[in-house]
Amino acid sequence: MDEKIQIAHGSGGKLSSQLIDNEIVFRFGNGPLKGLPDAAMLKGFKNNIIFSTDSYVVHPYEFPGGNIGNLAVHGTVNDVSVAGGKPKWLSLGMILEEGLPIKTLQKILDTIKESAEECGVKIVTGDTKVVAKGQCDGIYINTAGIGEAIDGFNLDKNLIKENDCIIVSGNIGDHGMAVLSAREGINIKNGPLSDTGSVHRLVQKIQPYADNIKFVRDPTRGGVASVLNEIVSNTSIGAILDSEKIPVAPGTNSISELLGIDILSVACEGRMLLICSESVSNDILTEWKKFPEGKDAAIIGKINNDKGRVTLSTVTGGTRLVDVPMGELLPRIC
Amino acid sequence: MDEKIQIAHGSGGKLSSQLIDNEIVFRFGNGPLKGLPDAAMLKGFKNNIIFSTDSYVVHPYEFPGGNIGNLAVHGTVNDVSVAGGKPKWLSLGMILEEGLPIKTLQKILDTIKESAEECGVKIVTGDTKVVAKGQCDGIYINTAGIGEAIDGFNLDKNLIKENDCIIVSGNIGDHGMAVLSAREGINIKNGPLSDTGSVHRLVQKIQPYADNIKFVRDPTRGGVASVLNEIVSNTSIGAILDSEKIPVAPGTNSISELLGIDILSVACEGRMLLICSESVSNDILTEWKKFPEGKDAAIIGKINNDKGRVTLSTVTGGTRLVDVPMGELLPRIC
Repeated sequence: MDEKIQIAHGSGGKLSSQLIDNEIVFRFGNGPLKGLPDAAMLKGFKNNIIFSTDSYVVHPYEFPGGNIGNLAVHGTVNDVSVAGGKPKWLSLGMILEEGLPIKTLQKILDTIKESAEECGVKIVTGDTKVVAKGQCDGIYINTAGIGEAIDGFNLDKNLIKENDCIIVSGNIGDHGMAVLSAREGINIKNGPLSDTGSVHRLVQKIQPYADNIKFVRDPTRGGVASVLNEIVSNTSIGAILDSEKIPVAPGTNSISELLGIDILSVACEGRMLLICSESVSNDILTEWKKFPEGKDAAIIGKINNDKGRVTLSTVTGGTRLVDVPMGELLPRIC
Repeated sequence: MDEKIQIAHGSGGKLSSQLIDNEIVFRFGNGPLKGLPDAAMLKGFKNNIIFSTDSYVVHPYEFPGGNIGNLAVHGTVNDVSVAGGKPKWLSLGMILEEGLPIKTLQKILDTIKESAEECGVKIVTGDTKVVAKGQCDGIYINTAGIGEAIDGFNLDKNLIKENDCIIVSGNIGDHGMAVLSAREGINIKNGPLSDTGSVHRLVQKIQPYADNIKFVRDPTRGGVASVLNEIVSNTSIGAILDSEKIPVAPGTNSISELLGIDILSVACEGRMLLICSESVSNDILTEWKKFPEGKDAAIIGKINNDKGRVTLSTVTGGTRLVDVPMGELLPRIC
């Protein structure tokens, strides 16, 4: 099938209805309440609700390890998760460029369906717009996510103090380097593969340690460097990372060294960064390592009293400042 | 100030943070739970939840009567409302084109703030992406909305039967014709003015009549024609509209006659179409007319037994079929 998206697919007329019926409702159903095509009714919340949204404009929309579809599911599932929520429902808003092959759209929607099922979330409401050629780069997706607050978490970065441990759940920088490689046509054997994936199980598993967990976040745009700088900036604490402890996949490492890009500033899309009391750090590490998505987890550093600064101890025994880039290293990685 | 949006405003680095702090948090605050910049925690739902989303790509993004900002608030507030919900929370996802004047962004954000306040909803979470020049047409916005289900509504189009009344809450087609006029540079005195606005009060006001209300919808893309055709298609019922009863503003009427556009297919963005038992139709009309947004409300037709067809009785005493356009009359009107 060589059909392409036409402007009329976004018009609200017959072609729109066909697209919705054949591609969206066919995959995701009609939402929890039939007869409400523009909204969903969600039942049975006992706790507070966590609500988050992200728009995805990744370029290219297909990359080693994933595409914009699973990225849009994982990204929002992760945002809800690291806010201490159990993700349950997603909305799906798509902006399509005239001329996008229907086959591409189908592939992306299949990926969305598959990853939503893996994450235990349902796509319950959505919207599709079409713009003319040259007014969008293929496809942009927005997802908004609703989850139920998990009991026990009291995440507050103001509770972070000296000697707390910094843990990441796996190799860092894979997503950013995979997208960059795809964009620039860098084809090397065993090159970087996006880590796009969900952290919802990792969050739910550490609930028993919630009292001693101060902070969790998915280090996306700006990477680990951005997240840590955001935490310590204008405070009396700092962070020191141990370069030998930071997990980095060989393919990702090669490309970042080749291009002179600081891997600490590169986005992950399936990782968690966590800060906790030292007393529970090894227990959390042990729990995480039981999951495929946590097998490379590592304690990569500590909170210290280095007012507002993030530093890295290098292999040669020195230290260097880990700053946040002012400009843009890798635009449109998510 | 002549600053413009740069790619780095979307990078997750310092310029991103400045944009978020100075333009977003400055207007909307930090969400109900501080320390969760990527999500919001929402409390105190007793009933079921209504969830809806829309992406807005209207061109031009400013038009007589509004801009993409209030459209993005009203559209989603209305989707939640016509699903029987009381809108409470909105997410705000923006895709900005490099080069967009910061002043324009500020104006749009001010409009969002103002219309959210009018509708009694809070912007609680959001996301901002920037794409290069030529990869988006100025600004695209996604809003997702959460509301609480209003007791008593049992909206189900399968309950619609012969002799039920069709009511609209005001003049139809204003939004579509206002956007078209702006796009095509049609400048006439007293020309069409977008009806972008919220119907949430109109929904909440008719709760006492809920038992006899079968259907409510905001007739956006495809207008009244699309909504009615969707209801009757493949059923044993039909709909007959009375052309003399349909409220149309003079400026909108002139332009649509000039261009030969069927006003029944043109989008409204602040109107409701309701189908109810005849017994409560006059009561609903009376209630609606008490509000500025309902002052032009009218009973425009009835459900009949004309299997799957929507017809219009014309001024000359004839009738004509009201069909749904296959293609695209007015792309990007929302």
